[in-house]
Amino acid sequence: MVRVGVNGFGTIGKRVADAVSLQDDMQLAGVTMTKPSFKLDLARKLGYRVFSATADTKNFQSGDIAGTIEDLIRESDIIIDCSPEMGEENKKLYEKHAKKVIFEGGEEPQIAQASFCAQANYDEARGKQFVRVVSCSTTALVRSLHAIDKAFGIENAYAVLVRRTTDPGDSKKGPVNAIVPETEMPSHQGPDVKTVLPHLPIFTAVVKTSTTLMHLHVISVKLKQEASREDVIKAFENTPRILLVDSKKGFSSTAEIMEYARDLGRKRGDLYEIAIWKDSINVKHGILYFMQAVHQESDVVPENIDCIRAMLGLMGKEASIEKTNRSLSITK
Amino acid sequence: MVRVGVNGFGTIGKRVADAVSLQDDMQLAGVTMTKPSFKLDLARKLGYRVFSATADTKNFQSGDIAGTIEDLIRESDIIIDCSPEMGEENKKLYEKHAKKVIFEGGEEPQIAQASFCAQANYDEARGKQFVRVVSCSTTALVRSLHAIDKAFGIENAYAVLVRRTTDPGDSKKGPVNAIVPETEMPSHQGPDVKTVLPHLPIFTAVVKTSTTLMHLHVISVKLKQEASREDVIKAFENTPRILLVDSKKGFSSTAEIMEYARDLGRKRGDLYEIAIWKDSINVKHGILYFMQAVHQESDVVPENIDCIRAMLGLMGKEASIEKTNRSLSITK
Amino acid sequence: MVRVGVNGFGTIGKRVADAVSLQDDMQLAGVTMTKPSFKLDLARKLGYRVFSATADTKNFQSGDIAGTIEDLIRESDIIIDCSPEMGEENKKLYEKHAKKVIFEGGEEPQIAQASFCAQANYDEARGKQFVRVVSCSTTALVRSLHAIDKAFGIENAYAVLVRRTTDPGDSKKGPVNAIVPETEMPSHQGPDVKTVLPHLPIFTAVVKTSTTLMHLHVISVKLKQEASREDVIKAFENTPRILLVDSKKGFSSTAEIMEYARDLGRKRGDLYEIAIWKDSINVKHGILYFMQAVHQESDVVPENIDCIRAMLGLMGKEASIEKTNRSLSITK
Amino acid sequence: MVRVGVNGFGTIGKRVADAVSLQDDMQLAGVTMTKPSFKLDLARKLGYRVFSATADTKNFQSGDIAGTIEDLIRESDIIIDCSPEMGEENKKLYEKHAKKVIFEGGEEPQIAQASFCAQANYDEARGKQFVRVVSCSTTALVRSLHAIDKAFGIENAYAVLVRRTTDPGDSKKGPVNAIVPETEMPSHQGPDVKTVLPHLPIFTAVVKTSTTLMHLHVISVKLKQEASREDVIKAFENTPRILLVDSKKGFSSTAEIMEYARDLGRKRGDLYEIAIWKDSINVKHGILYFMQAVHQESDVVPENIDCIRAMLGLMGKEASIEKTNRSLSITK
Repeated sequence: MVRVGVNGFGTIGKRVADAVSLQDDMQLAGVTMTKPSFKLDLARKLGYRVFSATADTKNFQSGDIAGTIEDLIRESDIIIDCSPEMGEENKKLYEKHAKKVIFEGGEEPQIAQASFCAQANYDEARGKQFVRVVSCSTTALVRSLHAIDKAFGIENAYAVLVRRTTDPGDSKKGPVNAIVPETEMPSHQGPDVKTVLPHLPIFTAVVKTSTTLMHLHVISVKLKQEASREDVIKAFENTPRILLVDSKKGFSSTAEIMEYARDLGRKRGDLYEIAIWKDSINVKHGILYFMQAVHQESDVVPENIDCIRAMLGLMGKEASIEKTNRSLSITK
Repeated sequence: MVRVGVNGFGTIGKRVADAVSLQDDMQLAGVTMTKPSFKLDLARKLGYRVFSATADTKNFQSGDIAGTIEDLIRESDIIIDCSPEMGEENKKLYEKHAKKVIFEGGEEPQIAQASFCAQANYDEARGKQFVRVVSCSTTALVRSLHAIDKAFGIENAYAVLVRRTTDPGDSKKGPVNAIVPETEMPSHQGPDVKTVLPHLPIFTAVVKTSTTLMHLHVISVKLKQEASREDVIKAFENTPRILLVDSKKGFSSTAEIMEYARDLGRKRGDLYEIAIWKDSINVKHGILYFMQAVHQESDVVPENIDCIRAMLGLMGKEASIEKTNRSLSITK
Repeated sequence: MVRVGVNGFGTIGKRVADAVSLQDDMQLAGVTMTKPSFKLDLARKLGYRVFSATADTKNFQSGDIAGTIEDLIRESDIIIDCSPEMGEENKKLYEKHAKKVIFEGGEEPQIAQASFCAQANYDEARGKQFVRVVSCSTTALVRSLHAIDKAFGIENAYAVLVRRTTDPGDSKKGPVNAIVPETEMPSHQGPDVKTVLPHLPIFTAVVKTSTTLMHLHVISVKLKQEASREDVIKAFENTPRILLVDSKKGFSSTAEIMEYARDLGRKRGDLYEIAIWKDSINVKHGILYFMQAVHQESDVVPENIDCIRAMLGLMGKEASIEKTNRSLSITK
Repeated sequence: MVRVGVNGFGTIGKRVADAVSLQDDMQLAGVTMTKPSFKLDLARKLGYRVFSATADTKNFQSGDIAGTIEDLIRESDIIIDCSPEMGEENKKLYEKHAKKVIFEGGEEPQIAQASFCAQANYDEARGKQFVRVVSCSTTALVRSLHAIDKAFGIENAYAVLVRRTTDPGDSKKGPVNAIVPETEMPSHQGPDVKTVLPHLPIFTAVVKTSTTLMHLHVISVKLKQEASREDVIKAFENTPRILLVDSKKGFSSTAEIMEYARDLGRKRGDLYEIAIWKDSINVKHGILYFMQAVHQESDVVPENIDCIRAMLGLMGKEASIEKTNRSLSITK
């Protein structure tokens, strides 16, 4: 049983903690928080041990916590750093205790020895001390583009990312009524894909919109090898953690996709898979076009679980992906 | 085992079907749809028998459905009509087959012999053929105001309902950027509360806003009997299906409340309880003020389950509420 | 010619500066900014002299500004402080130069010797050094409630303010999808009304929503004297800066009201009047109910102009209101 | 004096009517409406003659209208059809009276003998009976791409259009919280550009978001001829009705751009120019990337005015563009 500590209990941290709890080869050592809130009640209701995210424990009542972040590190074999982009600072502590750590995609790639997406470079994580699971959008791009690259080769790829502006549980950030461009192009996701797929020529641009549910990517790919629409559909069907949806079946927008995910009955209505609109897939003059939707809160969750097994050499890629999928009710 | 047919598989229908499935004294006879969509796949995945919502079955492939609405009615002891406000039309069919029926709050009160909210008038439903579970907002008002009325008496009540404009799974309706008043006052919810609590003097006004998550009610109540803030909190604490939340604990808005509900792990992130902001409760010159949030998609679900038992005389009020609550992980 | 300095060039400042420019008994001495942006180009295009809002001028190129805030104060007979709620700090400078100042409603009432709304207490400003024009929502409440109080007497008033969350030109603030309550009741607007109308018993509650266009107030008033719906309409018709709109004429929401304002052709599509839905006005058991919409960006602009004349004793109330109205194309 | 009839008084119709009124070589013969609303009051306030949009006048009181659509056609030398995409039906009437007509971009290209954008194909409209001014997004694409094509040649162009979902004055349409893809690619704008620029290879994709203010286009262009970022900026600077904005000057999003337009003081806060983010312009490996914002309510207004002159041969292209610009305060 690998003892896993989760540093942070926000959008990603709480989901990773839940996912770790579901694995029969892992044990959740605990989670951290900076101050008590309704999340403390939740963690206790779930039986999770809570540690203070800092050395300072005075925010908490004595019975509320099991120790500080250093105590959690000591009691863990591996740490998943789900802090709000404070990885660099936390890293000193991790190094002091010589522990293995998974960082999240909000951190700079340089923080780790490798960046990770299970289907693309599982074996690269083996034996490393520090590995970084790439961000939600990068994970999505790697999943679909890696599938295409493997099947047909990619001459170059271009993606316009229409992003959600904040997560559903937030009531502070906007915009209420605007489209916000990132005028610096390429956006960071293009180079970030290359941390996992170094030879993929990709350019990305980002626009932020007034929604909380999902990102939507508009992707065009110049293929090396000829492929029909049907070939591409087959390639996606054979790729793990990709779900094909059809607007003619009622999937008109990201709202209906998330409603479907709620109906599936997974915790929090999460959708770990990348949803690709089947009817958006088409090939014109050697260029493949398609649109995909990304549940920014959850698509990296299974990647974190696989990354633990990859780093510790617990099992091979296919076995881990399948085991993780089964635990989270992902069908492929 | 009561055989329950659910006519409709939309926002309320699919939740009621799930809730029926969880009861050990009920059996889901089936659900209806008008045409195939991703919801058909879902229903089949869940093992629900699907019937055509009309006599016409040509929208469906033969293997997809188990019959028409009339077949479902025949096979059911009681029907829950979750159609999109087509109850009047459907009623003819129900009468033809002499079945008991629960209608939802979108219908006019006259459709049924009684309107229903478990904690307020459970026993009134006994033996009736047609009962109507009141709408989400009316259910919320009845829950909190009945608690106050029982404890202190209500001279008169006034509520401004700040409503969500459509449900999260919809991508058609707006407004995108506006506040929409219902200029006719009182809005229909005031009179609707009186279908359950006939002697309660209440006036309501409605304003629609650009959100999908919850309604928020701003309520003021002239009390008959003196009461302190603490008395009121106690009264709410002793009332079933009311949850006290505190903005100082992180519940800044409806967004954080729904996030909490997702974290609780109930299906679809539903919140069956009415959430009352504890820190909004105050009494000034004999007037009680408070604010409550209503999950419009789910608060009536447990009421429908209780209503089945009340109509059929299966058990008493407290026993049914407790049994329903346990099945849905409602703590009180 | 009164020389008027406007300290700040944000939402209110730029509008007040424009309005001052339109008066034949006033002269715009200049405006201030903290740093150059597209607003600097605008100010110069309009021929407005620009001063640095602080003693520090290094943000600006030398040709861009005419001096610092102190230079502007020196050259002005009266200052309108439209800073982002920095009035307390700025006040020291104003006192040093012994100038008259108008503060805005974002400041605490104690900053000034009187709070002001032209139709209600014009004469109170006379001769004072520091006067505060109340905020957009308070101005709106004073306009309609003062009209009612004068005509029929108010036993007590209660308003639920459904607020916009930020102004249309902002792309940072949210919420995107939530209703945000102010759990502390009464909200500050209730007491703020009393700074202008000390004897009016009023209670207010606030809820923030995801829109940028206007606030919407749901108001109920217990009248001292009997009045019919028609009496109330007449009272509003006779009140300056109140506009009656009708949802049956297409005014379904705040969006259509602002569209109407744009069509009127006033600068920025502003609506200086409070828009009351005529069809929302009704009287039940001695209680008057109505709904009003408030253009938060502009309703205080004419008040600032009148306040200058009131403080300096330039002319009487009716004459000033009429003169201001004419300059801004307000019809009454 | 050309007598111009405007059929329709919605978003485009009312703006075109205003613009016609400002021309010294044109006279507004009148506008049409289907029923009275606040827009009728507006039209009369502006002194516009109002005609019933249909043969049926019973919606109106006798004094309210000057006749029916046929009366207006008779009294006009040219009609601008700003109806809600009812051009095909209206065309029969126009043909009956043998009048020249301008259709808008909501109609199919086949309705007219030519599609029109002033800077690109002014002379093509000459002498035609039916010409179509292309839609807001197509106009925007033609303006910027024609400039690039003239200067450097375009190998191919690709644009992802992130659209607003409805106009600011609407309170019915959504989505409130979703991103809505058009899964059919190319979207109609690509082929529509070719109705004006037949030899331009262009592909477009559309995504709809929850905002009312503007569209935002993310554009990539493979250039025939080498060009630096500075060359491109110069080409845009020399193109009429293109405005360069900079996010470092405060133009963070479409919200700040529309705020700037309001500050400019044009009627309704309109922005007739296409706003291109200067800091988004960059050239990488022979591909030009840039982002532009489109005020969907108004960018086609000057095109309609020019189109009148082009069809009637009143003057040449440069002269008309300059004359129209002056009347609408467009600086180039």
